[in-house]
Amino acid sequence: MNITIKISGKFFDQLLYNRNPEDYVTRLRDMIFSLTSEGHRIFLVVGGGEIARNYISIGRKLNLNEFSLDIIGIYASRLNAVLLSYLLNDDTYPLVPTDMEDFLQAFSNKNNKVIVIGGLQPGQSTSGVAALIAESTRSEYLIDCTNVDGIYDKDPSKNNDAKILSSVNVKELEKILSNVQGVNAGTYELIDPLAIKIIKRARIKTFVIHFNDIDKIPFLVRGKLKIGSEILVSSY
Amino acid sequence: MNITIKISGKFFDQLLYNRNPEDYVTRLRDMIFSLTSEGHRIFLVVGGGEIARNYISIGRKLNLNEFSLDIIGIYASRLNAVLLSYLLNDDTYPLVPTDMEDFLQAFSNKNNKVIVIGGLQPGQSTSGVAALIAESTRSEYLIDCTNVDGIYDKDPSKNNDAKILSSVNVKELEKILSNVQGVNAGTYELIDPLAIKIIKRARIKTFVIHFNDIDKIPFLVRGKLKIGSEILVSSY
Amino acid sequence: MNITIKISGKFFDQLLYNRNPEDYVTRLRDMIFSLTSEGHRIFLVVGGGEIARNYISIGRKLNLNEFSLDIIGIYASRLNAVLLSYLLNDDTYPLVPTDMEDFLQAFSNKNNKVIVIGGLQPGQSTSGVAALIAESTRSEYLIDCTNVDGIYDKDPSKNNDAKILSSVNVKELEKILSNVQGVNAGTYELIDPLAIKIIKRARIKTFVIHFNDIDKIPFLVRGKLKIGSEILVSSY
Amino acid sequence: MNITIKISGKFFDQLLYNRNPEDYVTRLRDMIFSLTSEGHRIFLVVGGGEIARNYISIGRKLNLNEFSLDIIGIYASRLNAVLLSYLLNDDTYPLVPTDMEDFLQAFSNKNNKVIVIGGLQPGQSTSGVAALIAESTRSEYLIDCTNVDGIYDKDPSKNNDAKILSSVNVKELEKILSNVQGVNAGTYELIDPLAIKIIKRARIKTFVIHFNDIDKIPFLVRGKLKIGSEILVSSY
Amino acid sequence: MNITIKISGKFFDQLLYNRNPEDYVTRLRDMIFSLTSEGHRIFLVVGGGEIARNYISIGRKLNLNEFSLDIIGIYASRLNAVLLSYLLNDDTYPLVPTDMEDFLQAFSNKNNKVIVIGGLQPGQSTSGVAALIAESTRSEYLIDCTNVDGIYDKDPSKNNDAKILSSVNVKELEKILSNVQGVNAGTYELIDPLAIKIIKRARIKTFVIHFNDIDKIPFLVRGKLKIGSEILVSSY
Amino acid sequence: MNITIKISGKFFDQLLYNRNPEDYVTRLRDMIFSLTSEGHRIFLVVGGGEIARNYISIGRKLNLNEFSLDIIGIYASRLNAVLLSYLLNDDTYPLVPTDMEDFLQAFSNKNNKVIVIGGLQPGQSTSGVAALIAESTRSEYLIDCTNVDGIYDKDPSKNNDAKILSSVNVKELEKILSNVQGVNAGTYELIDPLAIKIIKRARIKTFVIHFNDIDKIPFLVRGKLKIGSEILVSSY
Repeated sequence: MNITIKISGKFFDQLLYNRNPEDYVTRLRDMIFSLTSEGHRIFLVVGGGEIARNYISIGRKLNLNEFSLDIIGIYASRLNAVLLSYLLNDDTYPLVPTDMEDFLQAFSNKNNKVIVIGGLQPGQSTSGVAALIAESTRSEYLIDCTNVDGIYDKDPSKNNDAKILSSVNVKELEKILSNVQGVNAGTYELIDPLAIKIIKRARIKTFVIHFNDIDKIPFLVRGKLKIGSEILVSSY
Repeated sequence: MNITIKISGKFFDQLLYNRNPEDYVTRLRDMIFSLTSEGHRIFLVVGGGEIARNYISIGRKLNLNEFSLDIIGIYASRLNAVLLSYLLNDDTYPLVPTDMEDFLQAFSNKNNKVIVIGGLQPGQSTSGVAALIAESTRSEYLIDCTNVDGIYDKDPSKNNDAKILSSVNVKELEKILSNVQGVNAGTYELIDPLAIKIIKRARIKTFVIHFNDIDKIPFLVRGKLKIGSEILVSSY
Repeated sequence: MNITIKISGKFFDQLLYNRNPEDYVTRLRDMIFSLTSEGHRIFLVVGGGEIARNYISIGRKLNLNEFSLDIIGIYASRLNAVLLSYLLNDDTYPLVPTDMEDFLQAFSNKNNKVIVIGGLQPGQSTSGVAALIAESTRSEYLIDCTNVDGIYDKDPSKNNDAKILSSVNVKELEKILSNVQGVNAGTYELIDPLAIKIIKRARIKTFVIHFNDIDKIPFLVRGKLKIGSEILVSSY
Repeated sequence: MNITIKISGKFFDQLLYNRNPEDYVTRLRDMIFSLTSEGHRIFLVVGGGEIARNYISIGRKLNLNEFSLDIIGIYASRLNAVLLSYLLNDDTYPLVPTDMEDFLQAFSNKNNKVIVIGGLQPGQSTSGVAALIAESTRSEYLIDCTNVDGIYDKDPSKNNDAKILSSVNVKELEKILSNVQGVNAGTYELIDPLAIKIIKRARIKTFVIHFNDIDKIPFLVRGKLKIGSEILVSSY
Repeated sequence: MNITIKISGKFFDQLLYNRNPEDYVTRLRDMIFSLTSEGHRIFLVVGGGEIARNYISIGRKLNLNEFSLDIIGIYASRLNAVLLSYLLNDDTYPLVPTDMEDFLQAFSNKNNKVIVIGGLQPGQSTSGVAALIAESTRSEYLIDCTNVDGIYDKDPSKNNDAKILSSVNVKELEKILSNVQGVNAGTYELIDPLAIKIIKRARIKTFVIHFNDIDKIPFLVRGKLKIGSEILVSSY
Repeated sequence: MNITIKISGKFFDQLLYNRNPEDYVTRLRDMIFSLTSEGHRIFLVVGGGEIARNYISIGRKLNLNEFSLDIIGIYASRLNAVLLSYLLNDDTYPLVPTDMEDFLQAFSNKNNKVIVIGGLQPGQSTSGVAALIAESTRSEYLIDCTNVDGIYDKDPSKNNDAKILSSVNVKELEKILSNVQGVNAGTYELIDPLAIKIIKRARIKTFVIHFNDIDKIPFLVRGKLKIGSEILVSSY
């Protein structure tokens, strides 16, 4: 089957500033290998992380418009994507697709067991890209590896009593998000409206997990383990 | 200055099934010429219209997923775009850009006084594309030519007492839209969430008018005439 | 082996305006599957149909030149191509090649058991494209599915006594065509001079059949059934 | 105005094996400069010449099919095109377009006063390309610089009494050509069926002249001089 | 005239970690504007800086080969390039060319007064790219803005008595460089063998200056000021 | 395993002017088939040969700069590449990649057992391209088929007592080359500085052999035969 995994840019911050980047990479490699050796194909969508935030912050200080800042964030995500694609093994597509056509062409080649991609277009986050990739590849799972343990009922950075939800209906999720998201991305990183729309219409089985649990994904997709939060679409 | 004009696919339905397509085209040509001869550049974003709906309906009957249906709609919009680009004069870019990079390359060439574009990516409507084009070109106006006279306070197809709003704050607009829009496009054609997001963040002066009023656009941008509904962003 | 099949745009008119498009698509899908499951690769070249004719007619009324009209027809054929490619199964290339390089790249990937393509360049019909595709892929068969039962000895729309030819030498065919074809395409849809030239020089086994017989193609290529007209090239 | 000039590959044979290539190039440069300095734009379509013939002959000996041989000829023509584009001045587009989209993009940039192009697609000669370029740019003149002084009433290589025609109706031309052309290109180089078709439908003013008369083109387009043969389309 | 300016990645380190990035950008903008307003065209080639070094260092720890590390460095340089292109004004090409063809296409459009580019290909540094850009555009000046004040007679990081050379013959420069450069880039950043080769063969007037002197470039090219080191090519 | 083979343009001169080109091609085909049938993938990098030299010589006479001459040489090498790719069998990629991205995309498709490529960028020879291709594909062998029997200790064209070296350390090779190479390519064709740099850093097993020994490559890579000169990198 096909599996789309979004990896938060914050994963790359850990990779860059951690003493033992090998640990992170080894766990990621092992996870991917475990899945591809069972015949699955994996599509990795990566965010921009701290580098994106630093460059965007410079640009904002200097009065660039949001379109330009989005493009800069996309370039930063591609830097992460190219690093990641080279860290994986030979079955990984050796280029970073820059638009949906590029991606579909790479996808049509079944030799490419793994494809790594960053941002695509201004106005959408990498979670939106991940949902599009999942829909276009008819992925059975979309797994959003982020820097929180799952979806909370309130913004955990502002509410001490915020509780993690082991599953959440997509309609409830929309309500939760409408309370925490602003126009400009960045503060409370979660699924954007495009991602919600695609997950709903394509009824993609979606999990939000912490990227520290990345090595547990094979167990999750085999139904052996339940971590993070599941977004439920069946009942709408 | 730069002006982005979205033209509903329904305009093309008129063009195709009307006895005097010359009238429609002449008015459009005159309007464009009036603006370009004053030194303005015009970016036209066109929808798919009835052809898109027919093809999508066949596809849906045959169980295509929404991603595929969106792609089919994009191809239909490009057919309209290429027709329109050839109907305009020599200062029109002779190709239909298919992604944002293509568009920016065409835009960088100031010989191209007019560029016509259709859809870009699944998951977004042509109104979203139009907002992106307006933001990327720092357009002073975004004019959405649709098949209604403007924005109503309720869905006019279901409410006899729906009233047109000569101006509407973008926050109110979001509320109105949340009551009328479904996940699948088509029934009550208006501005999508991406368009709203871009209009808000880029503070683009936006008007929604009927495409029958397309010849009045030069008066509108000169501030000589007020038609349709204005979306207000200044106060948010 | 490789098989190139041209499908008249009129097939799509049936698909769009017929009550049971499922029937058409099911027969097409079954035929393709029957061939690919035996290891054959299929290249489908599709025409523009009624939509092309409608758009071209608008354009001609408004004095577009033939180059522009050809481009419009090409866009219409690509709309049919993208619909068709999504209606087929997973082994179909998920994009519509727009030039010969694109096609050859898709062709080099043997995962793509089926590739669907529309028009390529002004000045040539999709029957010319089909012959080029057949030659470039060294197809053993070129099958032209059109809206007539085969090649007639005279224009059947003007001659009541026109008779279908079960086989016709390519030289005779040239004579027949020289009597019925005008400069502007459309009235009596058949093989264009480019197609003739390629069929002759590459000695491609070519059949002209009615698209209602599309489900009989597997029997035709297995030599179990003889339908339509065969174009003979061996003796020149 | 726009002027399309086809230059036979044999011009390049002269350039390569002549002691004073400077003479050829100077005359060509002066002619181009004379036209561009009056505000005209020039589109040069070049053939493959002896190099094409040598490579194709090797390929044919080794049983390549005609599609492959055509591609090889196209590459040879592009080698001539790139040489020529560098020999001209700064207003020349610095790349060789490889398909019609490429060309139209280069054409939309009015800085490119001169664009040089070679072959585009198997199955058509560079005279067909030249006619397409002339039609797409609405060129007022198409000038075919070849290695004969004009169009003869019979094949001059076989008929001592062949006479040059100062003008020839396009219908007569078709008859003449049908007597001299074979399926495989090369022996009696003239206008191919695609070129004829485009010249007819677009009613392009077309002259066939000897490439030794290339310096007389400015006088020809100004109506000051009559050389070679004119192809008449007005009366059909 | 055309001027190619290479900007060390270290300039971007300053931009990112400095309290007042506005100062850096304002000086750069003013310098560019001063030159473009006199009709010059400017081609900026930017390096990867600290981000490139950090990503490459992670990759090297994880045993990526040098080809992959070069690609990663190229992506980092493009991130700097896109930031820079947005910080400049409207006459800047809105995309970052990724190969020489892309660049030449952007160059052929004279509207693009400024083009910003990063790395192009593994195995060459951005100083090599800068020399190629200078040669292809027939730039009258190539100015290498680096983090040293000019070219020293010995490696200044190892020799206290290293002296700056106000001018240096290209042959001497080769000798100096052969003593300080290793196979893997990074320690003593200077002109690479490709750059030397191009500077020699195209006889480009080349200066090496500190990027803190970037605002003095207009005076340098007007011959009003002498800073850094000049590389002399005339006498070889 | 992957094997990169550089074929001197002089091989094509033989092919073109020899009475029996079949002999050359048969030996090449057999060699390739022998390797691919054992599961190896072959990347062929071809030079421009006499055609390149003739065109470059015309260009130089007419004062083109070295950048333009390099581009012309690249086009000539692609003409050789396309001929060669068609002469090989069905597992050969049917296009000639024109930049590293193109190549990597073709490489990611494991159906392409053989890929043929010419030059890529001005400022580098095809031996540099071959080294890059070898590094990017992690080729176990780089075999440089040239018109000499191997590497000599001195320039054999000037020194009667020049002796062939059965193996040579890469550092020694650099010394030998520094004595024989000029800035402008052509006289004593050997490995360029880029090739040396890549061979060193990637420690690629490299052999220089005569192209007449091309049929011995399978024995060479199986370790059964020692011909030409080996470049040793292990000890540096």
